[in-house]
Amino acid sequence: MKKATVVGAGLVGSLWSVYLAKRGYNVDIFEARPDMRDASLSAGRSINLALSDRGWKALEKVGLGDQIREVAIPMYRRVMHAMDGSLTYQPYGKENQAIWSVSRGGLNRVLMDLAEREGNVKINFEHKCKSVDLEKGSATFTNRNTGEQVVSDNGLLFGTDGAFSAVRKAMQRTDRFNYEQEYIEHGYKELSIHPNEDGTHKLEKNALHIWPRGEFMLIALPNMDGSFTCTLFHPYGGEQGFDALDNDEKVRNFFKSTFPDAYELMPNLMEDWHENPTSSLVIIRCFPWSKNGKVALLGDASHAIVPFYGQGMNAGFEDCTIFEKFLAETNEDWDKAMKLYEEERKPNGDAIADLAMQNFVEMRDLTGDPKFLLRKKIEGKFSTLHPEKWLPLYSMVTFSHIPYAEANAEGKRQAAIMEQVMAMPNIEEKWDSNEVMELMNKLS
Amino acid sequence: MKKATVVGAGLVGSLWSVYLAKRGYNVDIFEARPDMRDASLSAGRSINLALSDRGWKALEKVGLGDQIREVAIPMYRRVMHAMDGSLTYQPYGKENQAIWSVSRGGLNRVLMDLAEREGNVKINFEHKCKSVDLEKGSATFTNRNTGEQVVSDNGLLFGTDGAFSAVRKAMQRTDRFNYEQEYIEHGYKELSIHPNEDGTHKLEKNALHIWPRGEFMLIALPNMDGSFTCTLFHPYGGEQGFDALDNDEKVRNFFKSTFPDAYELMPNLMEDWHENPTSSLVIIRCFPWSKNGKVALLGDASHAIVPFYGQGMNAGFEDCTIFEKFLAETNEDWDKAMKLYEEERKPNGDAIADLAMQNFVEMRDLTGDPKFLLRKKIEGKFSTLHPEKWLPLYSMVTFSHIPYAEANAEGKRQAAIMEQVMAMPNIEEKWDSNEVMELMNKLS
Repeated sequence: MKKATVVGAGLVGSLWSVYLAKRGYNVDIFEARPDMRDASLSAGRSINLALSDRGWKALEKVGLGDQIREVAIPMYRRVMHAMDGSLTYQPYGKENQAIWSVSRGGLNRVLMDLAEREGNVKINFEHKCKSVDLEKGSATFTNRNTGEQVVSDNGLLFGTDGAFSAVRKAMQRTDRFNYEQEYIEHGYKELSIHPNEDGTHKLEKNALHIWPRGEFMLIALPNMDGSFTCTLFHPYGGEQGFDALDNDEKVRNFFKSTFPDAYELMPNLMEDWHENPTSSLVIIRCFPWSKNGKVALLGDASHAIVPFYGQGMNAGFEDCTIFEKFLAETNEDWDKAMKLYEEERKPNGDAIADLAMQNFVEMRDLTGDPKFLLRKKIEGKFSTLHPEKWLPLYSMVTFSHIPYAEANAEGKRQAAIMEQVMAMPNIEEKWDSNEVMELMNKLS
Repeated sequence: MKKATVVGAGLVGSLWSVYLAKRGYNVDIFEARPDMRDASLSAGRSINLALSDRGWKALEKVGLGDQIREVAIPMYRRVMHAMDGSLTYQPYGKENQAIWSVSRGGLNRVLMDLAEREGNVKINFEHKCKSVDLEKGSATFTNRNTGEQVVSDNGLLFGTDGAFSAVRKAMQRTDRFNYEQEYIEHGYKELSIHPNEDGTHKLEKNALHIWPRGEFMLIALPNMDGSFTCTLFHPYGGEQGFDALDNDEKVRNFFKSTFPDAYELMPNLMEDWHENPTSSLVIIRCFPWSKNGKVALLGDASHAIVPFYGQGMNAGFEDCTIFEKFLAETNEDWDKAMKLYEEERKPNGDAIADLAMQNFVEMRDLTGDPKFLLRKKIEGKFSTLHPEKWLPLYSMVTFSHIPYAEANAEGKRQAAIMEQVMAMPNIEEKWDSNEVMELMNKLS
């Protein structure tokens, strides 16, 4: 009987268990937290995620697309909120292309259900990983209720236990394991915009809202219940940083003067502010991602990134697609498949980590810049005329399956071309002229 | 009574304890290993280090220079050994400027003796750090012989426990602690050249010998007993890498064909090869280096680097000098002094980490390149003519107290200038002409 152990029943762990189950494995998942499907538990923070093509592909592959689509809201464009309340719009892709707002908790619950429905997946909740045997591909867990120790010795062990992975920590103690944890200057705090009394959304529903303010920004993603989950991304230090906003008046004044239209929609601001923690943002890079053909990392455990490209979950789900591809290609030779997987995915993990930081600058700063929006329009037009020559970087990352590292390289090439185009005299007036399109055609 | 705890009685821990003792602190040092001064213990590997000006300054400051000089050998130049056995020479600095070969173990023994001689320093050997309380500045140690737990609660705790610091590991678990461990492609193995029968050295004594071979290199540093300690720096992978050299014949053939003159001097090659481990090389970067004004890291615990600039120990000793300076300036306000120390030292730790990697390329590759040697000669001549305008990078790092980050920046400026100079037609013939010197004068 084929058996595997999965550490962590989060999004990637649950999905990967479905993949393993479909390959005939009996899967024992161990999860440190209690079962979030238990109604007596608070839902916790209502973190939203943006599901896009890479994520969908991994879900479709095991037939989960339709169920997930039922709990997801398509967002077709960015809506930028200026200081004066005026709005600008930027479509994410071509017509009908969208990124999908899903609640992390909601999606995780569905994925757990679907994993258990496979019949050969068992989730053991409230079991904390205590130690890992990298030679054997086994691990020991502590039952948090009884204190009992449980050994799961299946000879195959997957670390899908997130940015602070216990499995990775065991690998980190081996010689020549490269590891980096890099905290950025910004943290985040979740806030919310409640629904109208009739349950409708207070802002355009099928959009991602951004209040770009240079050094910081507020975003809002729609929920099924008519509310929006908002996130303030904000530096810890500085005159208006988290550390300086140390009383209610300062917080209110900051919101009133910086996000006036959002402030009007958030009578619950101070309640949220105090209830929700200020959380840090970390980038994790490491290598290798596997040991002895028996232990491998997927998702945040191997490549935690900042959330600004909406690709954290998508990249983790794509790990499953790629790993599965190599299992098929090698006839389930785990040693070979793990090596192929980590060699293929590592540069792509690094690339999306870099892209996510770049997109932070774009979101918080450039989306408020007319020149930047013009550049996007020119790219969009050219891409429509010559789709074979130009797929915008955002589309490559979000609406394609081009490896992230290739997308990143192509994005740099495009940026160099657009610098020349944007330097044309009077580009504002003639941006959609033949002259501009011809130059782009020549350069690209 | 002023009290402090120091974790690790290595080079930096022993020296820093002398600094603390001279400030009137009672110092409890805890060291995981047994006392290396115990004659019954093997001396272990005879690692050599190159002591240079930054290290000397820190030693002189507490009056330890003379004692150390007795066990150190000045090396005035690099001797490069070509494949055909021919030798080239490159002075390290001006006449009488040298880097000093010392045995790590020998120096450590002397520093421990000197620390204990202060009267208020006690070294507790075979006590392994079990946990650290960052709030209190205390730590718990396990006595390796009795299993007994000892708490050292002095309110001031220093982590001088090396690249795999237990104190740093405790800091690493706090939020927003940046950390990176990066293993390079190369590992190393220590070998030796025994003395002549009359106790003299088989190679020029007052020099550092290099066999530069592109992707790898062998070096040799003199010892007081007439022997040389050799180190092979070598990639793990590749056709001739460590992993491929898996039997005696391959090792012998590799040495015979790659380092023929050294091979002749090493009849003990295979014995050393099997006795000494192949060790990895790691770069550690982290921040912050202190917590709560009560805990601070010095030396490798905060900035482990590769050994190719001979600056690891020197940088650790310079940590002591700089920390001491800020203690004086703040009237021993530890909170302020720790902040000033980490802010000043962090960019310099990063700079010497980068410089050490650069120097690896220089040593293994460029020291065998006539163009590179010519460049060094031109720089040397210009520096002699205009010492106020040009101090070569190697001299800034080795024979000055210019902060490493400044030296690194100045080195980049110099490299850009030298690229232009080396591009002059027929530079080989006219390198010491007025024309060349005038161009350098103009550019710099």
